[in-house]
Amino acid sequence: MIVSEKMLKFGGNSAIRAMFEEGKRMAKEFGPENVYDFSLGNPSVEAPSKVNETIIDLVKNEDSLKLHGYMPNPGYPEVRKKVADSLNSKYNTSFSAEDIIMVVGAASGLNVVLKTILNPCDEVIVSAPYFMEYRSYVSNYDGKLISIPGLKGSFQLDLEAIEKSINKKTKAIILNSPNNPTGVIYTRESLEKLAEILRRKNAELGIDIVLVSDEPYRELSYDGYEVPFLTNIYENTIICYSFSKSLSLPGERIGYLAVSDKIADREKLLECLVVSHRILGSVNAPSLMQKVIERCIDIDITPNVEIYDANRKLLYNILIKAGFEPVYPAGAFYMWLKSPIADKDFVDLCKKYRILVVPGSSFEGEGYVRVAYCVSKEMIERSENSWFKVAEELGLKSKAE
Amino acid sequence: MIVSEKMLKFGGNSAIRAMFEEGKRMAKEFGPENVYDFSLGNPSVEAPSKVNETIIDLVKNEDSLKLHGYMPNPGYPEVRKKVADSLNSKYNTSFSAEDIIMVVGAASGLNVVLKTILNPCDEVIVSAPYFMEYRSYVSNYDGKLISIPGLKGSFQLDLEAIEKSINKKTKAIILNSPNNPTGVIYTRESLEKLAEILRRKNAELGIDIVLVSDEPYRELSYDGYEVPFLTNIYENTIICYSFSKSLSLPGERIGYLAVSDKIADREKLLECLVVSHRILGSVNAPSLMQKVIERCIDIDITPNVEIYDANRKLLYNILIKAGFEPVYPAGAFYMWLKSPIADKDFVDLCKKYRILVVPGSSFEGEGYVRVAYCVSKEMIERSENSWFKVAEELGLKSKAE
Repeated sequence: MIVSEKMLKFGGNSAIRAMFEEGKRMAKEFGPENVYDFSLGNPSVEAPSKVNETIIDLVKNEDSLKLHGYMPNPGYPEVRKKVADSLNSKYNTSFSAEDIIMVVGAASGLNVVLKTILNPCDEVIVSAPYFMEYRSYVSNYDGKLISIPGLKGSFQLDLEAIEKSINKKTKAIILNSPNNPTGVIYTRESLEKLAEILRRKNAELGIDIVLVSDEPYRELSYDGYEVPFLTNIYENTIICYSFSKSLSLPGERIGYLAVSDKIADREKLLECLVVSHRILGSVNAPSLMQKVIERCIDIDITPNVEIYDANRKLLYNILIKAGFEPVYPAGAFYMWLKSPIADKDFVDLCKKYRILVVPGSSFEGEGYVRVAYCVSKEMIERSENSWFKVAEELGLKSKAE
Repeated sequence: MIVSEKMLKFGGNSAIRAMFEEGKRMAKEFGPENVYDFSLGNPSVEAPSKVNETIIDLVKNEDSLKLHGYMPNPGYPEVRKKVADSLNSKYNTSFSAEDIIMVVGAASGLNVVLKTILNPCDEVIVSAPYFMEYRSYVSNYDGKLISIPGLKGSFQLDLEAIEKSINKKTKAIILNSPNNPTGVIYTRESLEKLAEILRRKNAELGIDIVLVSDEPYRELSYDGYEVPFLTNIYENTIICYSFSKSLSLPGERIGYLAVSDKIADREKLLECLVVSHRILGSVNAPSLMQKVIERCIDIDITPNVEIYDANRKLLYNILIKAGFEPVYPAGAFYMWLKSPIADKDFVDLCKKYRILVVPGSSFEGEGYVRVAYCVSKEMIERSENSWFKVAEELGLKSKAE
């Protein structure tokens, strides 16, 4: 067999991606207006117009060789400086350009970080439910994923259980807040307590646990919820950021790593992160998009957030009215919906009424499904009838207006 | 230590990249016109004007959500079909869209392939000298690189030695023709003999050796040299292509994998290549650039090749006149120059006269240096005096015109 044994175990497509392909198939069969595809985190709001204006301006006026050429592996120095300056002014941090590494999206950034820090059998803690690819990313470098269920109902961090799971093999904890799939934002209080625990355990065990923060949804918070900036809370923090959601550029693969300037072994770490980036084959973040970020990083994206917020309220109200029990999300663009039956059966029942959602078990979150509301308002409205039919078939009691 | 033991061994920067940074530093100190930087394979010829025109047209006229959004992981179906059609018409192959996977440049493509096929301790053969990152790529997946020196003087494949090195653990052979760093193109005869050897060994040992062809320089051949298309010669072939050099887009990270439609375990392999691509974090090739390729793949790049060809002749003549012994390259944009002293000392001597070249030992090609002539004609002309001074200091006999 040409394929390696390890890869064979990964089997096929991801559940989310499979659903995405299924949605395309169903759209062909039933017409796109009759399929309610809530499966993928693909922004439904266009990139701010300044993004496309900037692309045109760059292509017309910049030196084409520089615009599309190699630059130092961690990115154009002026772009890295701009990212550092932007973070410093927003979050009162003290990043310099060298703490910033431009990467091919947050997923690639996470791989770069994990490749750099993980020894075989090192443990990486995540709070469940979690974005399922974390398991693959950790396995890529022979690490061991330790999944700790979030607190029941609130899905906040179970700090006690996290503390108990820490041992000499613990190398990192991956946080994702605002969270995919729950939409939960971890409170400042819980993050500060987590930092205390990590510091205590570091001292006790003579280790340096790295907090790896996966932040593609950082700006997507509603009702004024605070998303605390983690390098201000814990020194051994690496932030993996993507512009996929904030600037609606998921296909362009553009993001950055921001490495705390107080992290342990900083110099060696920065050097090795750049080496990992190169030898994993990403080499550098796409050049034109780097230059776009330089000019667009401080765009006010409030209008886009307001559109997702309106979707959030609309979908939540429909689900509540139909008799479901969704978690009201504080951020991101996912609703975490309690499944009245086994989640895979629930997904199938939804599909019967042409609603596509992802089973919670794909996130180690059995008993729930994820409903991505980064879709058009019109689609949410059109889906109402189907949600009621699903509820009816389940014998749920719909609530009066 | 936060950094893993394996990564620590990689040490710091690559020699090429270190030289690139050194060149930037020297340009600041001495003025860019007084530094002759032949270190990096960064195209000196602009992308064809149609590339930038296409970007503007796409941004102005395409649906922004689709242009910058997620698509199926292996790429937009219409882009994959266009690549397949283009190859089929040029090389008389029979690719379908599903044999093509759009990737984040050839380096990422190589990682995707090696991750998919390598079991720990599997052996991967390369012909030395070779692009030094191959060693890291193979090591990423715990494979073992087996380096076989090319034939003395010609740097063609040493088929006898390759055959002898094949055993049950042999999983792949990486070819790179036109070659970086030698500029050599492997002859059709040698490739057909190689295919015979691989087939014989496959049958004898019950294995399926994969020919992984790294082809960023495919179109850069001079004097009508043929670059044979490898899926037509050996069935278990995967081509890793990049548009970095042909369309002068190295910073944009855009390329593809073309998997022979006659490869062993084809269906499972294609599925797992896509999974590797996703879980390594590349997820998909940059979306805007995919759409650029759809429209620009068949651009006639003869004018660009002619510029490199003129550089090739100019540099070769200077070096010969000065008394050096370069290998006259058939393709790519590198000259492989015999070093009259230890190559690292030669590099230092060149640096004294502000010429930057890469030591052959960085490619497992001791006794030579690599001179990249993807630079401006003017820089080559300006460098003449320095080359003569280096030759003089080495006591070389310069040749009359």
